[in-house]
Amino acid sequence: MTARFDVTAIGNAIVDVIAQCDDAFLAAEGLNKNSMQLITQEHSASLYTRMGQALETSGGSAGNTVAGVGSFGGRAAFIGKVANDQLGDIFAHEIKAIGVHFDVPRLVDGPASGSSLINVTPDGARTMCTFLGAANELTPDDIEPALIEGAALVYLEGYLFDLAQARAAFAKAAGLARANGRKIALTLSDAFMVERHRDALLGFIRSQIDLVFANESELLSLYQTTDFDGAASRLASEVPMAAVTRGAAGSVVVCGNDRIAVEAVPVDRIVDTTGAGDQYAAGFLFGMAQEKPLEVCARLGALAAAEVISHYGPRPQTALKDLATAHIAEDWGD
Amino acid sequence: MTARFDVTAIGNAIVDVIAQCDDAFLAAEGLNKNSMQLITQEHSASLYTRMGQALETSGGSAGNTVAGVGSFGGRAAFIGKVANDQLGDIFAHEIKAIGVHFDVPRLVDGPASGSSLINVTPDGARTMCTFLGAANELTPDDIEPALIEGAALVYLEGYLFDLAQARAAFAKAAGLARANGRKIALTLSDAFMVERHRDALLGFIRSQIDLVFANESELLSLYQTTDFDGAASRLASEVPMAAVTRGAAGSVVVCGNDRIAVEAVPVDRIVDTTGAGDQYAAGFLFGMAQEKPLEVCARLGALAAAEVISHYGPRPQTALKDLATAHIAEDWGD
Repeated sequence: MTARFDVTAIGNAIVDVIAQCDDAFLAAEGLNKNSMQLITQEHSASLYTRMGQALETSGGSAGNTVAGVGSFGGRAAFIGKVANDQLGDIFAHEIKAIGVHFDVPRLVDGPASGSSLINVTPDGARTMCTFLGAANELTPDDIEPALIEGAALVYLEGYLFDLAQARAAFAKAAGLARANGRKIALTLSDAFMVERHRDALLGFIRSQIDLVFANESELLSLYQTTDFDGAASRLASEVPMAAVTRGAAGSVVVCGNDRIAVEAVPVDRIVDTTGAGDQYAAGFLFGMAQEKPLEVCARLGALAAAEVISHYGPRPQTALKDLATAHIAEDWGD
Repeated sequence: MTARFDVTAIGNAIVDVIAQCDDAFLAAEGLNKNSMQLITQEHSASLYTRMGQALETSGGSAGNTVAGVGSFGGRAAFIGKVANDQLGDIFAHEIKAIGVHFDVPRLVDGPASGSSLINVTPDGARTMCTFLGAANELTPDDIEPALIEGAALVYLEGYLFDLAQARAAFAKAAGLARANGRKIALTLSDAFMVERHRDALLGFIRSQIDLVFANESELLSLYQTTDFDGAASRLASEVPMAAVTRGAAGSVVVCGNDRIAVEAVPVDRIVDTTGAGDQYAAGFLFGMAQEKPLEVCARLGALAAAEVISHYGPRPQTALKDLATAHIAEDWGD
């Protein structure tokens, strides 16, 4: 069956609140730099009062990725939950404005839309404190079968392993995808998330996943090791393909015994690394949907990541389709 | 009496929704490029669906100005009205986070917090469609006398001439300021606003105002002329001092027979001109509060305007205090 979508993603629907801070602020708040931690609504309200001037924009890891796919000109859909409130309006508007299909019913009579308080230090590192709110209420009923059955690639956000109902939703989506011969990709999302759910993640990867996205610390956390090459080999033995990002050192595609290393795209100044991994995945998935060689997929990922770390906010501000045309000698068609 | 605040500003409390567009979009929507127009909640909801991916951040002309004063290290207060909703939370957080005093009670049982849909073309020009919402409900009761009596400078946003209750609030504030020997500044805000309220504005300027801020088109609209020098002279005959911005051509301070021309500060790329005039006013007012010469006031304004047009969003992302220290050979104290 021809796919209606290149990518359908399932993830936490989140609005980001992005402010600048210094390392002392992170220490005073007891926050692990570069991590994501879940916080209560009360903690969120309290932390917010101590944060600096902020800007708000839609986020959520998988939401950022499909927004990136849309920015490349790909066809994408998103499944995630927001409430019927102003932040929900913002989330819904932005993902649709970039061309992504989104029609999950709003949550009624529940918590507010989720938000992530993101503190960015002068080195561009982001530290996230997320109140999930309505995003926490995603259930298997929200997985519209046609969106999974009609997607060439189904992309799952690892953060959802923290949520029991969402894991059931993953299982439903994986079953639908398998039954229709669709590929399933999973991002490990965060080293602490990997720590919390290592066994369940490994079981899910072995049984259901075709492509894993991870950064270096997530990969090392998965196998509780400091040996990158060894961890990559173990992952290669469990999943057909993986793409591992290494920050300024670029990325490595792991596929059987093959290792394809691709350099990072240099940027003038790293402003805010929020969304770097998400946009890498966007470029990679878009390339796969276009049936490009793996090296080109990784280069598209690097290009998208470079765009997003050069400004505040986790989604592209320049059309990635135009960047791809300008920087990669390929014909992207329409 | 020593002033508790350098500047207290009265204006529309607005959250900005900033998206990129092309000139064809403005034409299709029937929007006057570079202008601000008031729209209904229904029109706002409809226009939003057709806009591109956006980011949200606090705005409002006078709110931006006091945020800039705060960023310079000045002491500022803001008077404007938001509702008890998520956008109101965002507005209140951001203005307080930058160090501005803000304690106007939230509007209850009324419209939502105001928002401005800002479409930015590739040349950096911004075109604004504002749903005032709760901002429209500012009344004389919201003018806390201590905030006016304790401010060296009271800054009034011309946009409020569109609102009958807010004009009454202006009158109350002007009376309190006069009675306490405080200076009153007014920004003309928008050429179409000037067109709508020319006679009332001129009467208010002649009777109450010590300092007028205007851009070139607002000044020309005030006197229905195309003769800049003539208009400047007419304004000089009606108000002790005026600062007129001319975009890339810099600004001119008009004071009696004196004309002090100051160049614009060059920027690598004009990204978004939203807030340029607001930040010019911030620098100018901060300089006045520091009792700097007028030329230095205008240079501080130019510096702040250059910072804000080099990124999306109407408020400084770099501390203006640091920029002032780096670029202007003056001792700013603490």
